[in-house]
Amino acid sequence: MRSLMMAAVMLGGAATATLHAQPPDTTVVRIAELVIDPAQLDAYTAAVKEEMETSIRLEPGVLAIYSVAEKDKPNSLRFFEIYASEQAYRSHIESPHFKKYVAVTQPMILSRKLIETVPVQLSAKGR
Amino acid sequence: MRSLMMAAVMLGGAATATLHAQPPDTTVVRIAELVIDPAQLDAYTAAVKEEMETSIRLEPGVLAIYSVAEKDKPNSLRFFEIYASEQAYRSHIESPHFKKYVAVTQPMILSRKLIETVPVQLSAKGR
Repeated sequence: MRSLMMAAVMLGGAATATLHAQPPDTTVVRIAELVIDPAQLDAYTAAVKEEMETSIRLEPGVLAIYSVAEKDKPNSLRFFEIYASEQAYRSHIESPHFKKYVAVTQPMILSRKLIETVPVQLSAKGR
Repeated sequence: MRSLMMAAVMLGGAATATLHAQPPDTTVVRIAELVIDPAQLDAYTAAVKEEMETSIRLEPGVLAIYSVAEKDKPNSLRFFEIYASEQAYRSHIESPHFKKYVAVTQPMILSRKLIETVPVQLSAKGR
């Protein structure tokens, strides 16, 4: 039993070393630009905040979802989304909370532009 | 001396409690869209990666700088930058490493669009 635990600890150590040696080059970043019906902006904002919070809390592969409005166009929203992998992104868009968000907010969105990207560098504190 | 230290610890505790009670609503997010001269893209990328890494390492108020290329336009770069406050942003653009980056990369940049934003929600793992 003890030797099994030792082996597990050693394997764990090796896996950690490997992870540190190889940067996470599977990371997927997606950008979205949405224009929201001004009359429904409050309802949209409430729905998307809930969806974002739920995704970060429940989905291990959803690393960050940032939502900002353009300064002088409060209904022009930009999203910057970081996923651990393509698989994590696909799993996200199949999740019940994402599907609910899409169904609820569809009639509130005037236009939507999605931008696929290739990460150049993702620098953040304490990651 | 001991009571001074106790007072300092208590003040520290109070400040922390206040910070936790109030969400960090001073956060500043800026977006930039740059088009780089394709012939100078490698040199630009090296310079900006160094500037990003230095800013995150040396500046407490620079929380994240993300750089991505549009998938089919490797010389169209988008930056998503998170600062702890307006003061942290101003301090960043006055830093020696940022000024060096600007001087070195100025001739490599074909166009630059800066977008000021109002954060809606910034959701990330382990922040």
